[in-house]
Amino acid sequence: MAAIDLNCDMGEGFGAYAIGDDAAMLRIVTSANIACGFHAGDPNVIDATLRLAKVNGVAPGAHPGFHDLYGFGRRAIRGESPAEIERQVIYQIGAVQALAHAAGHPIRHVKAHGALANMAAEEPDLAMAVARAAKAVDPSLILVVMPGMETEKAADRLGLPMAREIYADRAYAETGNLLPRKAPGAVIHDADEAARRVVQMVEEGAVVTATGKRLWGRIDTVCVHGDTPGAVQMAQRVRERLSEAGHLLAPMSEVVAG
Amino acid sequence: MAAIDLNCDMGEGFGAYAIGDDAAMLRIVTSANIACGFHAGDPNVIDATLRLAKVNGVAPGAHPGFHDLYGFGRRAIRGESPAEIERQVIYQIGAVQALAHAAGHPIRHVKAHGALANMAAEEPDLAMAVARAAKAVDPSLILVVMPGMETEKAADRLGLPMAREIYADRAYAETGNLLPRKAPGAVIHDADEAARRVVQMVEEGAVVTATGKRLWGRIDTVCVHGDTPGAVQMAQRVRERLSEAGHLLAPMSEVVAG
Amino acid sequence: MAAIDLNCDMGEGFGAYAIGDDAAMLRIVTSANIACGFHAGDPNVIDATLRLAKVNGVAPGAHPGFHDLYGFGRRAIRGESPAEIERQVIYQIGAVQALAHAAGHPIRHVKAHGALANMAAEEPDLAMAVARAAKAVDPSLILVVMPGMETEKAADRLGLPMAREIYADRAYAETGNLLPRKAPGAVIHDADEAARRVVQMVEEGAVVTATGKRLWGRIDTVCVHGDTPGAVQMAQRVRERLSEAGHLLAPMSEVVAG
Amino acid sequence: MAAIDLNCDMGEGFGAYAIGDDAAMLRIVTSANIACGFHAGDPNVIDATLRLAKVNGVAPGAHPGFHDLYGFGRRAIRGESPAEIERQVIYQIGAVQALAHAAGHPIRHVKAHGALANMAAEEPDLAMAVARAAKAVDPSLILVVMPGMETEKAADRLGLPMAREIYADRAYAETGNLLPRKAPGAVIHDADEAARRVVQMVEEGAVVTATGKRLWGRIDTVCVHGDTPGAVQMAQRVRERLSEAGHLLAPMSEVVAG
Repeated sequence: MAAIDLNCDMGEGFGAYAIGDDAAMLRIVTSANIACGFHAGDPNVIDATLRLAKVNGVAPGAHPGFHDLYGFGRRAIRGESPAEIERQVIYQIGAVQALAHAAGHPIRHVKAHGALANMAAEEPDLAMAVARAAKAVDPSLILVVMPGMETEKAADRLGLPMAREIYADRAYAETGNLLPRKAPGAVIHDADEAARRVVQMVEEGAVVTATGKRLWGRIDTVCVHGDTPGAVQMAQRVRERLSEAGHLLAPMSEVVAG
Repeated sequence: MAAIDLNCDMGEGFGAYAIGDDAAMLRIVTSANIACGFHAGDPNVIDATLRLAKVNGVAPGAHPGFHDLYGFGRRAIRGESPAEIERQVIYQIGAVQALAHAAGHPIRHVKAHGALANMAAEEPDLAMAVARAAKAVDPSLILVVMPGMETEKAADRLGLPMAREIYADRAYAETGNLLPRKAPGAVIHDADEAARRVVQMVEEGAVVTATGKRLWGRIDTVCVHGDTPGAVQMAQRVRERLSEAGHLLAPMSEVVAG
Repeated sequence: MAAIDLNCDMGEGFGAYAIGDDAAMLRIVTSANIACGFHAGDPNVIDATLRLAKVNGVAPGAHPGFHDLYGFGRRAIRGESPAEIERQVIYQIGAVQALAHAAGHPIRHVKAHGALANMAAEEPDLAMAVARAAKAVDPSLILVVMPGMETEKAADRLGLPMAREIYADRAYAETGNLLPRKAPGAVIHDADEAARRVVQMVEEGAVVTATGKRLWGRIDTVCVHGDTPGAVQMAQRVRERLSEAGHLLAPMSEVVAG
Repeated sequence: MAAIDLNCDMGEGFGAYAIGDDAAMLRIVTSANIACGFHAGDPNVIDATLRLAKVNGVAPGAHPGFHDLYGFGRRAIRGESPAEIERQVIYQIGAVQALAHAAGHPIRHVKAHGALANMAAEEPDLAMAVARAAKAVDPSLILVVMPGMETEKAADRLGLPMAREIYADRAYAETGNLLPRKAPGAVIHDADEAARRVVQMVEEGAVVTATGKRLWGRIDTVCVHGDTPGAVQMAQRVRERLSEAGHLLAPMSEVVAG
């Protein structure tokens, strides 16, 4: 049975503001995507998250997004060239990389956040900007990609190690992209249903779309959310079902290398 | 004759805003202190400054400051612990380090900016926070320090390579700190007078205070400003007078190693 | 029996971030100090808070602070002139005033936040800057002041209507200022003790210091906090004890006019 | 001969950063669109611009944009509802209105900036959001609109006073919108050519498109830019040619009322 990673976005507080139950999630997941200070996060939050991840044996990664604290990185921002996006992503990875180095818990992966991730999944230029940024900082960093989408193609083109990811609580369009949040059935709220689908996709080795189509290919990592109601329970259920089905949970660096 | 470095703050634009004539200064100085995005600078400006420094053979360094774009890092901000300041400085150095790595022109030094530098010169905890941050990112980074002040002591305590710095256009108090800008004679506007003093201090091996006192110790680097009227001419004059006096101009990494 | 106002800081979220239980506090207090977007708050949060205050019959006011979202307005920032602070406060009051006008629930008072409030209590220039700003926007706005401190003197000097305020959960120094948070006994955590002290001070007509000294003068308003553990219960207890003691709870505009 | 207004964007500095030659432009134009602190501007810059406008007899207005200092308000930001945009515009107008009131030089008009203006010209919901915001703050404020575009329709629908605007240095598409900056001939660099076109459009009472089509309707105001090379000369030429052709230059409040 192959190993599988559980990843979660983390460290999304800012100054006096907190969001999500990172301590609980770090007892469940195997990789942590740490906000880099642009859409969320600040040096204190990043450092605290890195140290808590270390204590829990969770592998950290950089989670860069648009420079948009007000919009939490969820707003599509147009008008920057791919080269500008690349520089912004390098900046963010470098900042977290340095704090991770100082904390003795180096980052292992890069996963784009929110609108940047959504846009990169669909737009080759943006996907290449993110992938180039990761490679420029450290070519051994694993890029988290959507199977079949532009991010996967970009990682492939640049020869980057990549982790193919599915979302535990989201339904898929036929393209392999997520159904828009507002589409009926786009967000799965039932923990058992989410866990069942995850096990199915991991075992079949395919993204299963809302229409039942299979997009074949190995699944390396499963994203669970930490900031929605019932998030901790759903993450726990996904982990349990994967374990019961005989899957070893391990950081994506071990999964991808395996 | 010993080598001496000329350094200048650079890359202090932000988005649509530009400040200083970096292109002109990069033809004169040997080290560039690049703003890191907190008090000034953004990933585009940092990258452009790094590449222009590379073309001109100027050694880059990180120039971290308070997270205060509105105040350009010149406002004293109280209420953060030294540990928080340390994390903010690590974040900034890491961000610029990554862009410098990507540009093929690695940073060689760290120099604190504005109010953070002023406070670190006087306060041991802050001086140690800045020095610890530099060491945490890369212990071979040179810390730019004020002779006789807390930053020098902190670099010494941590065993960091350091460059002892004087300011071409500022008068000194007996403590070794700069006279406050508003004190009479605190800012030197005449290029010849500034150049004469620089040569004197470098040759005597001492900071010469406004009252004529000598604070003995080797001078490694001279700070010239790029954003004041007549800045480029003053920097040019300082360089010429140092050369005429037989001093070799070289990046601080060569000066400190020498 | 004189009427007394209960006020609470509100609307301190930002974008995706929430803080405090405004809905609960708005069922208890009679005046709401609404963050203006500098230390916290954004146009959506301000608008939502104004409308919820309106539904609950709570009088709104502007709660300006330093432009410091990262520090939540709690960091002392030096290096700005009183005239600059005055402009920043005018800007903030004007922004909230316009949203309040649009919501059909005009602001009635101004209360400075955090470090700005602390500094204004002690420094005549800053106290005058805040008072001048309030007067410049609308001379009928009530300025919330600390009895015996510089803010009271500034309101007096400018002839502004003012509400003299005590804090339910804080002990007082002999100067009339709050004991620093870190001093022993500075923060009162017991709801009954806080409520007892409030009733005592309101009935005696004096701020009672930690050493038992009385600073005589009418108390118009009591500040309760909304973002600490047990905050809602403490506010509820203060309200109940004041009511049981025969005090009418009313917005500060009615208290001050009375 | 009808009066005509010349307007220019102003007050677009921030903290240590300056942009444009406001002092020169204020000797030429009759209305000033003052940045509100979101895409540019801060309370000091706003106040200084208002006072300089007052001295020069130039009528001030609010110039709200996206909350995007990094992008100078030129980046299209998606993901906010029209209601959110409306609140952001109310906030900005209110802030400048209060500073203008304090400076004794009240604002008379509202003109959206950059990407917000471009999007509002094409999208009815956004046009209504901007128009509703202006009306909510003060229904006597003049809304600056593009003839034939959604902003004009929104002002019309809400019964707002409006000023129909042309750009001195931009070519027009058949829709009445500006040709995209990158299209050939989109930006007019020659001052004489710009001035000739302005006089033609004002006298014909029509926007003249790049293809020669006429979009009939009175022209109330001409936008000249202050932050491009040769901007001051072009503005001066436009003013001279309009004067020579017998047009009275006057603030848009007088033009629209006339």
